Amino acid sequence: MYNRQLTDLVRQMTLEEKVAQLLQLTAHFHEGTESEGQVTGPMEEMGITESMVAASGSVLGLSGAQAIIDVQKTYLSQSRLGIPLLFMADVIHGFKTIFPIPLAIGCSWDLELAEKSAEIAAKESAVSGIHVTFAPMVDLVRDPRWGRVMESTGEDPYLNGLFARAFVRGYQGSNLKEEPERLAACVKHFAAYGAPEGGREYNTVNMSERNLREQYLPAYKAALDEGCEMVMTSFNTVDGIPATGNEKLMRGILRDEWGFDGVVISDWASLREMIAHGAAEDDREAAYRAIRAGVDIEMMTPCYMHHLPELIKNSHVDEALIDEAVLRILRLKDKLGLFDNPYRGADPEREREVLFSEEHRNVSYELAAKSSVLLKNEGSLLPLGSDKKIALIGPFAQSDDILGWWSCIGVKEDAVKLGTALEERLPAGQLLIAEGSSIHSMSSQQLKEAMETAREADVIVLALGENSEMSGEGGSRTDIRLPEAQLELVCQLKTLRKPLAAVLFNGRPLDLHGLLDKVDALLEAWFPGSEGGAALADILLGRINPSARLTMSFPQSVGQIPVYYNHFNTGRPLNPSKTEERYVSKYIDSPNEPLLPFGFGLSYTTFVYGELKLSSEGLTSEQPLKVSVSVTNTGDRAGVETVQLYIRDVTGDVVRPMRELKGFVRLALAPGESAEAVFTVTEEQLRYHHSDLTFASDPGKFQVFVGPNSRDTQEHAFRLI
Amino acid sequence: MYNRQLTDLVRQMTLEEKVAQLLQLTAHFHEGTESEGQVTGPMEEMGITESMVAASGSVLGLSGAQAIIDVQKTYLSQSRLGIPLLFMADVIHGFKTIFPIPLAIGCSWDLELAEKSAEIAAKESAVSGIHVTFAPMVDLVRDPRWGRVMESTGEDPYLNGLFARAFVRGYQGSNLKEEPERLAACVKHFAAYGAPEGGREYNTVNMSERNLREQYLPAYKAALDEGCEMVMTSFNTVDGIPATGNEKLMRGILRDEWGFDGVVISDWASLREMIAHGAAEDDREAAYRAIRAGVDIEMMTPCYMHHLPELIKNSHVDEALIDEAVLRILRLKDKLGLFDNPYRGADPEREREVLFSEEHRNVSYELAAKSSVLLKNEGSLLPLGSDKKIALIGPFAQSDDILGWWSCIGVKEDAVKLGTALEERLPAGQLLIAEGSSIHSMSSQQLKEAMETAREADVIVLALGENSEMSGEGGSRTDIRLPEAQLELVCQLKTLRKPLAAVLFNGRPLDLHGLLDKVDALLEAWFPGSEGGAALADILLGRINPSARLTMSFPQSVGQIPVYYNHFNTGRPLNPSKTEERYVSKYIDSPNEPLLPFGFGLSYTTFVYGELKLSSEGLTSEQPLKVSVSVTNTGDRAGVETVQLYIRDVTGDVVRPMRELKGFVRLALAPGESAEAVFTVTEEQLRYHHSDLTFASDPGKFQVFVGPNSRDTQEHAFRLI
Repeated sequence: MYNRQLTDLVRQMTLEEKVAQLLQLTAHFHEGTESEGQVTGPMEEMGITESMVAASGSVLGLSGAQAIIDVQKTYLSQSRLGIPLLFMADVIHGFKTIFPIPLAIGCSWDLELAEKSAEIAAKESAVSGIHVTFAPMVDLVRDPRWGRVMESTGEDPYLNGLFARAFVRGYQGSNLKEEPERLAACVKHFAAYGAPEGGREYNTVNMSERNLREQYLPAYKAALDEGCEMVMTSFNTVDGIPATGNEKLMRGILRDEWGFDGVVISDWASLREMIAHGAAEDDREAAYRAIRAGVDIEMMTPCYMHHLPELIKNSHVDEALIDEAVLRILRLKDKLGLFDNPYRGADPEREREVLFSEEHRNVSYELAAKSSVLLKNEGSLLPLGSDKKIALIGPFAQSDDILGWWSCIGVKEDAVKLGTALEERLPAGQLLIAEGSSIHSMSSQQLKEAMETAREADVIVLALGENSEMSGEGGSRTDIRLPEAQLELVCQLKTLRKPLAAVLFNGRPLDLHGLLDKVDALLEAWFPGSEGGAALADILLGRINPSARLTMSFPQSVGQIPVYYNHFNTGRPLNPSKTEERYVSKYIDSPNEPLLPFGFGLSYTTFVYGELKLSSEGLTSEQPLKVSVSVTNTGDRAGVETVQLYIRDVTGDVVRPMRELKGFVRLALAPGESAEAVFTVTEEQLRYHHSDLTFASDPGKFQVFVGPNSRDTQEHAFRLI
Repeated sequence: MYNRQLTDLVRQMTLEEKVAQLLQLTAHFHEGTESEGQVTGPMEEMGITESMVAASGSVLGLSGAQAIIDVQKTYLSQSRLGIPLLFMADVIHGFKTIFPIPLAIGCSWDLELAEKSAEIAAKESAVSGIHVTFAPMVDLVRDPRWGRVMESTGEDPYLNGLFARAFVRGYQGSNLKEEPERLAACVKHFAAYGAPEGGREYNTVNMSERNLREQYLPAYKAALDEGCEMVMTSFNTVDGIPATGNEKLMRGILRDEWGFDGVVISDWASLREMIAHGAAEDDREAAYRAIRAGVDIEMMTPCYMHHLPELIKNSHVDEALIDEAVLRILRLKDKLGLFDNPYRGADPEREREVLFSEEHRNVSYELAAKSSVLLKNEGSLLPLGSDKKIALIGPFAQSDDILGWWSCIGVKEDAVKLGTALEERLPAGQLLIAEGSSIHSMSSQQLKEAMETAREADVIVLALGENSEMSGEGGSRTDIRLPEAQLELVCQLKTLRKPLAAVLFNGRPLDLHGLLDKVDALLEAWFPGSEGGAALADILLGRINPSARLTMSFPQSVGQIPVYYNHFNTGRPLNPSKTEERYVSKYIDSPNEPLLPFGFGLSYTTFVYGELKLSSEGLTSEQPLKVSVSVTNTGDRAGVETVQLYIRDVTGDVVRPMRELKGFVRLALAPGESAEAVFTVTEEQLRYHHSDLTFASDPGKFQVFVGPNSRDTQEHAFRLI
């Protein structure tokens, strides 16, 4: 439809119909209209009537092609103006085919594959009737106590921005109307949800606007630059005002400054939660603040429904604000083609064909293989020799809890377990399996079996970790070590003096003391998704050469948090050769550096870097700088090296990070093969937010660093002229 | 002198003389001019000449009446204009007579005694020739990992402000010229030095300006409102710009907004450290940024000396800025009476009389007695019965390391040890002493002796803690538990099933797990100063009834940091009766509440509160609210109860803390005695910084809480009309 037709449609709507467009409820409410009585409770609680439900503009969390077709049909049959319902859902890392968790996807540094995963998730969801996914989540994270770090791609604003774009491309494709098997994306959580104090879920966020703009906003902006259709507000406050009612953030930055004209939705009940925050006295004030701030859809609370009509009648709120909000929602419905075909991609037959198809599972396998990070490999214990008898021990040996939080309609029973995958790949009798311990406890029987099993083997492979509920939303921990029982299991097995490898399943960087120091090899598997076991087995057996790199620093301990690579120098940096100096920025009981740095990851082969070369010592806005280095695979296996480029602005109007990722190249090299990693550094990449918030570069000294991770780099100076 | 005379004096000075006034060096440089060669190295390193030293305006760290008289005499003999030297030093919690560390003083909630301690410190310093102390340190602190929390009075802006004022009154008296045994005070560290990220010394500080103004700035402002003569800049950045070069902070807020016209001094080398920060390319730019920001005195680096003349000649810096700085310094010298008597209080004879006098030690004793916090006392184990045989065990049983960091010229050998004090007070044979362990290790011999000693006793008193180097500047820790060896000692002694009390010596809130849960009684002694052992012995034996209250929360664990009482509600607060709910602001492995809350402390007697009474349900700017509660000492000892009043603004333009301390009353009650704690709540107390930074109150709902600590309170609602 043309914009004018949509505007006309808005004009035909009653105020009540318009306000109802702004309400989003779960599917239960709609089901309730058929199987009466089921949702009477929730409806009464919210004080909404059947007619309000019948007029509400969108639905949350329903899937299944036939179910959605049915609800849409009923809905339209009661609709005066024939405006179709929008169906939205949390499709985070796959729909039925589950991909590794986003933090793992980040570790792949593979944007194409990330995009592919989103495309598949979109296809599976779209044929199941969904129109919008509440993804990507692009919150920058620095605190592994927070459970929801598993849902982010990590601590770097630049890399998060690239993944944000890749996911949006994958979900949305190029034209939502012509591609009914894509979804509209909804970037979240605007803004800075990833910085809760103490890593405690939903806690206060406190930072300067400059820091917000420099570190936290870029990834949201990147998603919008890619055309992301929607934005979800965050639960937290931004400088004291809940994001959902934050006029400066939403109206000021998002709409006016960035020109975003798509739909903004509150997070679940976050509109009414302004009352608990203490930023609104009641539902009425919450509605007032949110509509002024620019929130179009209210999810799961009825403040708009109950109060906007009166606020407009009493001229506290301009009806034009509601008209704009409704128009944005209708425009999205139109973009999705719903006015032409309200059922869109929903197709029970396609659903049977497409969901969890072999093709999709293959991509999940590939992504799992590319996102597991080899953190240690002493004496090249991995890959395991084909002649070795293997004892697979630990609570994850035969666990199907490997999908991670937010696994949509994926079911654990469909997940390939590590033990099963190894069994399939190994001759009978070569693999022995014992549970060893549960996640949080170890019985003497479990230990006994584990020790007996291990004694019979040549090499022990531990499968350890956090269960999926220990991360994800509401999964904040103050202790980020492996549970005591599992650390004890490691100690006990260590006494056998056999080669020890470990595979770790988890949703956050852990304090690895008691594990990394005890095992010979460690593979960080995260929650690897539907095909996780298969991919991990192939890595352990050498059919796949791991290539992933951490996108979040692993701290020395919880007491060192936050620790992240793009920190500042301080006025008294620690001199690594004089660690005993007292009056420097350090701890007396811990290094400053993380245990494992951003960008870190090993391979089964080795790469040797040539000398770092710069095309010039200076760079101007017209003349970019070319930075290059040759990399040679000096091992005997093909492998992928992720060559990373970091820059430091030595002196600024404000202090500047010690290094900032500005580029990377993934080189696939056969044994003995060399290739050149070539980067172009432009003036634009040197811009930053000054104290007056202007975004510009300053002439002067810079340093460029190139290497396999953020720590082990070659460096060279240059000047911006 | 009149201001005009000082202005005339500035006019007579050469540019070089003026710039030299802005330089502060340690005494070594001046000694070097006599015993030649000694400081050649440092002088060469700094690139300064003898004539620069001879003209420099102030000296740091020298004490001793005769020494200072000598340096002043020599200096003046070479001075063209006869401008005397200023002598400054770090007199933090006592000079020779050492008081408890400031964090302990805070726990006394006794402003008069705090003032008295500063007055004594001033007297001892002044007769030793010092003119200015780099105190009080009023940085608000929320992170016990930071070593320098020992130097703050805690986590509350209001209480810190009261102590700031008390210290300034104590140091400065009412007239520095007429009272030569007072010091000029220098409030520090401006600003927000107490919020280093990760609790790591000198680390980045990141917060919004609103938060800075609401929580961090009030205590500095309070010191200035009390007439504090000087301000010291902090090492950290404030929103990306080192405080020492932060024009917005220093010129904008401090000078223009607050009208501060006293002397601003950089912290040690912090001016040049702008280069390491990456906020200045070289010494020249550092000088440029600092002088523009409003720093008058450069401590221990020569950027001003080397570059201001040229910056002025080239018109990059207006000479008026230097003239102002010099005038401020001269004005301070004049205020101190140095133009009349350049030796001021320096008096070798008074020095012998005054330093560490009995009168002073008595005040130190009183403050130690009032700042030790009784944290647990199961079954009224304390005070110890006079018939009980006591085993005093632990590395602090006979340690003199009880003065704490920054103990000036105080010597450990003068400190009264706990063991010694108990011995003096108990009949022979009633006290047995064993070391038990060292701070960080326990030998089998130590353990054996400890167990044998303990077996002979009726009650065990542990004396445990951190040594003084584990806190203080440069003393940040990632692990805030007692050292493992001491926790093991507790476990071992626990097996004897005897009554266990512990006295804790430390400079920060610790994670008390493994101690608090194992002992029957725990007395937090902090570093109690010169008379610490005596005061603690008298508490243990019941001659003193403890009355102190924590001014910093004790966390459940390091993984829970930061935890502080005046936090926000969030949009999804944890319902204490539904702790299993997932989607609330919580950890899955720890309570949200600290282990011990702000304001907490026990007594040997018991206090019962009557009903909370309000004079009205509403309050206006004309009609304050009277809040009162009767308190009765229901025990059998006299005691002091600190009745605390907190307020919550239920709804604000920005979110408001769950409770904020707004008043307290210390009631000294005989057994059976009752008294009324009466508070007046005014509209002024309800003001806060809005999102646009205006400072105002909003009409609406409030809650008032009254009780013995920030947790266990009665509450009542009222409205601001």
